[in-house]
Amino acid sequence: MTDPTTDDDRRTHLSRALPLDRFNAFSDGVFAIAITLLVLELPVPTGEDLLGSLLEEWPEFLGYFISFAFIGMSWLTHARVTGYMKGGDTAAGGLNLLALLFIALLPFATSLMVSNIGGPDERLAVLIYGINVLVASVMLTLLMAYLVRQRTLLQGELADDTVEALTRQRRISNGAWLIAVACALIVPPVAIGLYVVAMVLMLALPFVRLRRT
Amino acid sequence: MTDPTTDDDRRTHLSRALPLDRFNAFSDGVFAIAITLLVLELPVPTGEDLLGSLLEEWPEFLGYFISFAFIGMSWLTHARVTGYMKGGDTAAGGLNLLALLFIALLPFATSLMVSNIGGPDERLAVLIYGINVLVASVMLTLLMAYLVRQRTLLQGELADDTVEALTRQRRISNGAWLIAVACALIVPPVAIGLYVVAMVLMLALPFVRLRRT
Amino acid sequence: MTDPTTDDDRRTHLSRALPLDRFNAFSDGVFAIAITLLVLELPVPTGEDLLGSLLEEWPEFLGYFISFAFIGMSWLTHARVTGYMKGGDTAAGGLNLLALLFIALLPFATSLMVSNIGGPDERLAVLIYGINVLVASVMLTLLMAYLVRQRTLLQGELADDTVEALTRQRRISNGAWLIAVACALIVPPVAIGLYVVAMVLMLALPFVRLRRT
Amino acid sequence: MTDPTTDDDRRTHLSRALPLDRFNAFSDGVFAIAITLLVLELPVPTGEDLLGSLLEEWPEFLGYFISFAFIGMSWLTHARVTGYMKGGDTAAGGLNLLALLFIALLPFATSLMVSNIGGPDERLAVLIYGINVLVASVMLTLLMAYLVRQRTLLQGELADDTVEALTRQRRISNGAWLIAVACALIVPPVAIGLYVVAMVLMLALPFVRLRRT
Repeated sequence: MTDPTTDDDRRTHLSRALPLDRFNAFSDGVFAIAITLLVLELPVPTGEDLLGSLLEEWPEFLGYFISFAFIGMSWLTHARVTGYMKGGDTAAGGLNLLALLFIALLPFATSLMVSNIGGPDERLAVLIYGINVLVASVMLTLLMAYLVRQRTLLQGELADDTVEALTRQRRISNGAWLIAVACALIVPPVAIGLYVVAMVLMLALPFVRLRRT
Repeated sequence: MTDPTTDDDRRTHLSRALPLDRFNAFSDGVFAIAITLLVLELPVPTGEDLLGSLLEEWPEFLGYFISFAFIGMSWLTHARVTGYMKGGDTAAGGLNLLALLFIALLPFATSLMVSNIGGPDERLAVLIYGINVLVASVMLTLLMAYLVRQRTLLQGELADDTVEALTRQRRISNGAWLIAVACALIVPPVAIGLYVVAMVLMLALPFVRLRRT
Repeated sequence: MTDPTTDDDRRTHLSRALPLDRFNAFSDGVFAIAITLLVLELPVPTGEDLLGSLLEEWPEFLGYFISFAFIGMSWLTHARVTGYMKGGDTAAGGLNLLALLFIALLPFATSLMVSNIGGPDERLAVLIYGINVLVASVMLTLLMAYLVRQRTLLQGELADDTVEALTRQRRISNGAWLIAVACALIVPPVAIGLYVVAMVLMLALPFVRLRRT
Repeated sequence: MTDPTTDDDRRTHLSRALPLDRFNAFSDGVFAIAITLLVLELPVPTGEDLLGSLLEEWPEFLGYFISFAFIGMSWLTHARVTGYMKGGDTAAGGLNLLALLFIALLPFATSLMVSNIGGPDERLAVLIYGINVLVASVMLTLLMAYLVRQRTLLQGELADDTVEALTRQRRISNGAWLIAVACALIVPPVAIGLYVVAMVLMLALPFVRLRRT
């Protein structure tokens, strides 16, 4: 058992480098905290006219819903992408950390965007938000691409159509956010509109599926 | 193993779409963070008269206890509702995200309510709090209803009386919060009273059960 | 399987009421968040004399260390107390929530105490901190007492000497904090001294054990 | 079963003192929260020139990336070091708490450092940051050393070359941070440069490994 040259030992060694339960627990923790910290960006109005103050805060609420939907969907993607793993290695752990780095930045980018909507620097703020989301989406894609190539990290064989479905879904996600970033450069309000459409699609999806069943 | 047409493969495919441990870990994380963030809404008094300042902060403490009880009980409900699952699909994940979205909003709604108790906009603040709690409760009910219908997501058969017990409990919860929302529209202090009664019931329940055993 | 009248089914039913993994994950989450939120109470000095400002912040650092030690040790106690469970019921879940309610309050009580050390309301602030810690300790004791009585919630038999050891440890903890509360009423600085002694004991313990092995 | 004198019972007793899943869940929670709280230290610029304000915040962003990389790598180390455990005892739990105490302090030390870069107290702030990281690294080493000696806490035998690899890695980490601390005493900007190099190495590592495969 002290000779790590057989295939079986290598795999044990590998899976111990980063056990799956630690990989998942840490990732779920960062996703859960980032999504819950979003609420801290909602300022509680003080002063006389509560309804008016709340209505004036619409960009903050919009940011809460958009970022909640995006982090939530990224978590679903992460769970699907890593659902075939049996353990991680240092590279998978590092790529995962990079994806989480940009997920954890989203409460900041959200706050930056919503506090500049309608202001002179709206274009830059909307662009930074889009880039943050795009980079997080690309990092999840890199993590997926690495896992698909490192067959030793996976449980059993991965069906070709599963890989294709995952790849197609990542391409759609990356493409959509790339378009949003391009829009942000040219017409920021259209980019915001795209963020809202993405959010509505993501939050309404379960109800569409509910009716279908 | 690459042909996902058999029943067994479908189920494996399904459970991998959203493994149960990820579903639970993420949900537990959001519940735990939302319930612990409530403490950040308690302002530490500065100034001369500590006792007087603390007594003046009674609405903040009331909000802490009410929301702690509600989030705690929602977590217990969530654990019971999802305790029969063997894995999630995208719709279950989406419905769960929507429930968590309103759970994670509660620290904000709590802060909003307590900072307006006794003020001119008390009615609106108490109403918003009640609606937030009601929507969270309804979302948990939708999640339960979906799970009960999607038998493939469950471990084994679900006894009819278990479904009935869960449904009855959800109806009582939704009904109680609907009454509280109606009260908030007409006599806000009565709604606050109902929130307090609900909190006391929820926190005192374990002691009642303790004495019975 | 639909008739929950046999002993075995009842137990299954029971353990599904609150699965052990959910009970633990939620509790671990609240402990981890409460202990990590303590750092937010450390103000980052701004201004000219960094060293002087940091030295003036000694009560804040003391509070960080004391509360970190107490929450950490409470977590160890919680893990030991619930290490014999095989699942929870509503009463265990409720008692656990009450224990967590007072654990989650500690960042507030810590901030309250350290910002009043040396001030006119030191006695009250030190007393509130002691009461918070004492109540959290008592709640963990109640949870333990309930679990020991509800044999159906436990895995196998619990050895009498294990129960005795747990009970003795809880009595020492409750007794020590009761003495600290009494001191806080009469001579607050002595209570602070006791908190420091408890903290040093708790943080130094692993090193004592290290040397012994 | 009530007589804990046999080897097997002792081990059961031991593993129940601190079950592995609790040890991991609590640790993962603290790591995840500390790494995600870093984002709260990034101030959202208000005022006219958004780009200029963001560029002026470069120390804050640098701090975010450095501390994210360090906490992330510490978590990878923690997962590897404890990946051979089968359960903890009180000393392992205590050493782990001490390591987490300094991990949880990092958002504070980060904020302290970045708000003093370029200021009169840069040396002290950079030194404190380095000491915090060094102590956290040393605590992880002590935890590893304890686990390697307490063979009863481990699953099966630990290969000698695994112990050597872990020990070598801990020595390199401790040595590197000791050099950084020494630099901070003499030429603070060089220490900051070392932190940046460490961060770039840690975040670029996965891509190097990607290209190699």
